[in-house]
Amino acid sequence: MTAKQTEKQFLKSYNIHDFDVPLTSVDMAIFTLKDEQLQVLLVKRAQHPALGQWALPGGFIDFKKDKVLADAARRKLAEKTGVDTPYLEQVATFGGADRDPRGWSVTITYFALIVCDEVELSGDESSDDVKWVPIKDITNKLELAFDHKQVLAACIERLKNKVQYTSLPVNLLPEEFTLTELQQTFEIILDKKIEKKSFRRRIDDADILEETGNMKTGSNRPAKLYRAKPKGENFYFTRNIEGPR
Amino acid sequence: MTAKQTEKQFLKSYNIHDFDVPLTSVDMAIFTLKDEQLQVLLVKRAQHPALGQWALPGGFIDFKKDKVLADAARRKLAEKTGVDTPYLEQVATFGGADRDPRGWSVTITYFALIVCDEVELSGDESSDDVKWVPIKDITNKLELAFDHKQVLAACIERLKNKVQYTSLPVNLLPEEFTLTELQQTFEIILDKKIEKKSFRRRIDDADILEETGNMKTGSNRPAKLYRAKPKGENFYFTRNIEGPR
Repeated sequence: MTAKQTEKQFLKSYNIHDFDVPLTSVDMAIFTLKDEQLQVLLVKRAQHPALGQWALPGGFIDFKKDKVLADAARRKLAEKTGVDTPYLEQVATFGGADRDPRGWSVTITYFALIVCDEVELSGDESSDDVKWVPIKDITNKLELAFDHKQVLAACIERLKNKVQYTSLPVNLLPEEFTLTELQQTFEIILDKKIEKKSFRRRIDDADILEETGNMKTGSNRPAKLYRAKPKGENFYFTRNIEGPR
Repeated sequence: MTAKQTEKQFLKSYNIHDFDVPLTSVDMAIFTLKDEQLQVLLVKRAQHPALGQWALPGGFIDFKKDKVLADAARRKLAEKTGVDTPYLEQVATFGGADRDPRGWSVTITYFALIVCDEVELSGDESSDDVKWVPIKDITNKLELAFDHKQVLAACIERLKNKVQYTSLPVNLLPEEFTLTELQQTFEIILDKKIEKKSFRRRIDDADILEETGNMKTGSNRPAKLYRAKPKGENFYFTRNIEGPR
């Protein structure tokens, strides 16, 4: 062994600033359903680099506030939206020499699902503006800062995959919802129609919902309202949700 | 906007060492099949911290050699094993204030699948020893440095999940293999028996293998040898591989 020091001596003399270190940040795709579309939260950057460009919200780890990585993600989400108990999932980490003009950089990306009715958006010193943007408006039309278009694409892909075999979409609905609203949520994310009969059978078999005892009334026939059972928010189906055959 | 500088001026005055920065590293679970067991490569640390402890191989990003994150993982793998074209997949990123005594740290973890017959293990200045260790010997008996036991558990879980719905195990076999060897590989990773008939039907339906024209002879009845078709190494089944019912 090349151990000429004790670990204590080593740690005392260790200084991370003696080394090449990448910028390491956390970025988030915060999804919601709004106007019957899947939308994502974007911020307009008020700081260099990429000043004035739209980007996914994110930032650096705060050593004083963040004990673990997900704390940084939750903190950023709460700062922008006030929501502090979202469905949050780490998607992937992107890193490279060329993705940020400041130098070698790494970003750990998360997606969150929230109900936008409960949210009041707020900017901060790092952003001039913050808004919901439909996914479809970004894919073709809107440029994003850094590699955030690629990051967002990875988050959307993960969300769509997960929706095929989990009950994740309940996290996009208010606490009480009808089966039709739940089916529409699946359909909006998957961007295709689902067969009502097989959807209902699947939800029945999964036993993830319970009736709240309330009814939704309005322009349509009154419909039973449901909520997710505890742990029903992220149930795994044994087969994928399929489109009509 | 608070833009009092141009981006060029900003970048000129920007110095990452003015900020709190986490240690950011890449760690890998390199899996192989050896002695009919799933095994993982471990290195014995020759440097502080955790000197003398067994750990997953890994290290810091080399700004001169690594253009993107996966380059760092591939480089580490090649240094230890000589293998430079593995199946490589990013699993998850772990980060926190307490996982490394040097300070706030982040590790991006990958798993790789390789054929161990082709491999000559080699240490370097950062490791005193390097060896294959059966997964079962680690889970209960062996302590690992840092949070590497948790990292390894995440890699094993991802591998087991993936094996249920993809053809990933072909990456653990030599170029030519029998259907029985492929089934055994699935069984070893899943740690349970699979029904031969339904396994063969699934492989047939997936159309991911082709006959090489060669036969395996030996103590058993001669058996046809197969190879993965191009892009057959990571085929997604529409239903999970199941155990016997």
